[in-house]
Amino acid sequence: MSTGIEPGDRVGCTYAGKELEGFYITERDGKAVIKLDSGYNLGIDAKILTKLRTQAPRPHSAKKIEQDESLPQLSIVSTGGTIASKIDYRTGAVTSQFEADDILRAIPGLAKIGHFSAQVPATILSENMTPAIWRKLASTVCDEIKKGSRGVIVTHGTDTMAYSAAALSFMIETPVPIVFVGSQRSADRPSSDNVMNGLCSAAAAVSDLGEVSVVMHATTNDDYCAIHRGTRVRKMHTSRRDAFTTIGSDILGTVDYPSLDVKLSCSAARRKEEGTEPVLNDKLEEKVGILYFYPGMSPEVVEAFKGYRGLVVMGTGLGHTASGCIPALRSLVKDGTSVVMTSQCLNGRVCDRVYDTGRDLLNAGIIEGGDMLPEAAMVKLMWVLGNESDPDRVAELMRTNLRGELGRCTPNGL
Amino acid sequence: MSTGIEPGDRVGCTYAGKELEGFYITERDGKAVIKLDSGYNLGIDAKILTKLRTQAPRPHSAKKIEQDESLPQLSIVSTGGTIASKIDYRTGAVTSQFEADDILRAIPGLAKIGHFSAQVPATILSENMTPAIWRKLASTVCDEIKKGSRGVIVTHGTDTMAYSAAALSFMIETPVPIVFVGSQRSADRPSSDNVMNGLCSAAAAVSDLGEVSVVMHATTNDDYCAIHRGTRVRKMHTSRRDAFTTIGSDILGTVDYPSLDVKLSCSAARRKEEGTEPVLNDKLEEKVGILYFYPGMSPEVVEAFKGYRGLVVMGTGLGHTASGCIPALRSLVKDGTSVVMTSQCLNGRVCDRVYDTGRDLLNAGIIEGGDMLPEAAMVKLMWVLGNESDPDRVAELMRTNLRGELGRCTPNGL
Repeated sequence: MSTGIEPGDRVGCTYAGKELEGFYITERDGKAVIKLDSGYNLGIDAKILTKLRTQAPRPHSAKKIEQDESLPQLSIVSTGGTIASKIDYRTGAVTSQFEADDILRAIPGLAKIGHFSAQVPATILSENMTPAIWRKLASTVCDEIKKGSRGVIVTHGTDTMAYSAAALSFMIETPVPIVFVGSQRSADRPSSDNVMNGLCSAAAAVSDLGEVSVVMHATTNDDYCAIHRGTRVRKMHTSRRDAFTTIGSDILGTVDYPSLDVKLSCSAARRKEEGTEPVLNDKLEEKVGILYFYPGMSPEVVEAFKGYRGLVVMGTGLGHTASGCIPALRSLVKDGTSVVMTSQCLNGRVCDRVYDTGRDLLNAGIIEGGDMLPEAAMVKLMWVLGNESDPDRVAELMRTNLRGELGRCTPNGL
Repeated sequence: MSTGIEPGDRVGCTYAGKELEGFYITERDGKAVIKLDSGYNLGIDAKILTKLRTQAPRPHSAKKIEQDESLPQLSIVSTGGTIASKIDYRTGAVTSQFEADDILRAIPGLAKIGHFSAQVPATILSENMTPAIWRKLASTVCDEIKKGSRGVIVTHGTDTMAYSAAALSFMIETPVPIVFVGSQRSADRPSSDNVMNGLCSAAAAVSDLGEVSVVMHATTNDDYCAIHRGTRVRKMHTSRRDAFTTIGSDILGTVDYPSLDVKLSCSAARRKEEGTEPVLNDKLEEKVGILYFYPGMSPEVVEAFKGYRGLVVMGTGLGHTASGCIPALRSLVKDGTSVVMTSQCLNGRVCDRVYDTGRDLLNAGIIEGGDMLPEAAMVKLMWVLGNESDPDRVAELMRTNLRGELGRCTPNGL
């Protein structure tokens, strides 16, 4: 910077007729990037910035957090994401720069709930999640449970958290709670949800729950978090704190805030007897995709998945594509691709027996995905194909409820 | 049939321990298909069927419906779908076999609301909708308005109704209501929504509304229909009658049932002065697709859209893909594809300025889709590219609200 402004300095300017203040982050693509007090970043001409004051160096406490070893042993497994982010004035605000102890420092209340160990198998923005990182994550989580952890908190970016929670649901038979948590607003924003979500996730991690879940704000108030089943949850808003929604079943429970009282529904799996080992099955077939059908789709788009072992179609309504796409789907099935039909409606159940196109799709060999969410169906298909090569057996497993991903299947109209 | 059972005959059997009754439809793939009284079809071994009675020939009233010419002139434009379906005992239950007069016969109350003319530009299951049929539909609708229609009801299958409503929103500047209506349950089912939806759509068609809308059950009760803006509506359930939801704005209004009182919100466009001509612009670029991003997506899937003029990406969260997909997207943009980012969250607004991957996507030339629904964004992109070849101008139009498809755009964080 030629203007003498350094990362972290307080700056001000007039923009679109408004007086703005914030912290200088960096210069990028010819624009100064400042973090406004709203938490958003603004790219702006550096020349209009005025330095208000130099940022005092932040006290970087290297002091070890005191932990109470009489409390339950819990694990924090961090993969990055907003909840693990600090303001990084060098590279832009919300990258994931997390050292495991930081979360205990950022959310001191955690140390009253458990005695934590921490692992960092990945530090990514969650849109960069891959099946390979799921394997690493699953194995890290299992190791923590084997070492005696009574509950595991996985901090994760919200973008793909539902995919990852579904992946671990299939990959681990867990005796203890595995709780995914994230935050929709970074810690430096007044409306950040990191503290409440973090404390609620810890409360869920010491609860009687015994399955993979996502714990996030249930409302726009700071009143309680919902506990969602890992195979039934979806991010349904780009920015709201209550973005995560359970679809197709009831939530597993709630964590009241600030009391942290946990209520579990009768459908939530319960914690197994102490000492029960987790079972890890981390085989995933990576050649699996999602195809979103739309009017006018050329069959060539279907053909892009030639050679794939699995494909989840997000069809219209009860699970349809245009008749013109069915030959290409049939050809994929003939070549050995397992094709599973889900619906872009997201809610409700696929049923390909009502209308002609549906019956033609069944005749082409597609597998009805029932009421599985497309994302859960994709991850399940990866896992089933990782473990099974016979197409009939694959189809049977895709139609079988394994981890609460599939509701009770009512035979057609009965 | 060797068993002496004919289409339309009443049959019975014992299946899965239950006594079932229904009408014999046809034989298909070695199975007898019967329509159960629930309205669903069941494929079943013909040998277990018992004929209960021969179907009496239905009285096929060829009598012309009496219409009151003093009532407002309205049009029914049918494209097929469940609302237009009759039970067809020869080909399977729910195909679309519609003659225009049939809807007046099926819903006698319509004749008290308007004086109808009818057109049938297509008879398809709506998953087979194409841009070419949109052109035909738009021109039919415009012709009806030019001939003096004070409101047009478009009967349409529910699968792609939202896409088609968005398409006509862009293709026609309308002085009168253009109301899409469908039904989630066919007319022969006790829970059919065809009568209430049909009457409510007619009430909307004679109302003061002046834009393209979708009118469907708002709740699971038979109490009122919602009037949705054509560019803001989405089918959000595979089978429920209240499947259609407005996302990202308020509904345009309601039609109470059975009073048929219409209430319009202040944001709904109003009917133009009588005699105002509709403006048809039916140019659509067909080489436009939708790409649904998922973890582990290979850049090759992006490359399947090489040569496309437009691509709508359904990214994660605020509008992201994996970093590994960005070079392939950049390459599409360089080759002349206009790439618009939307979110698979469906709710909320895309903002690619907060996180690194978002900024990288912007640098690669993607266009932020704001809070446009992916389906509306795709149809808009078809229409914009049909009318405009300069990529900068295309980007500008995609970022401009044309038909209520895009909410007020708040500059980043201000």
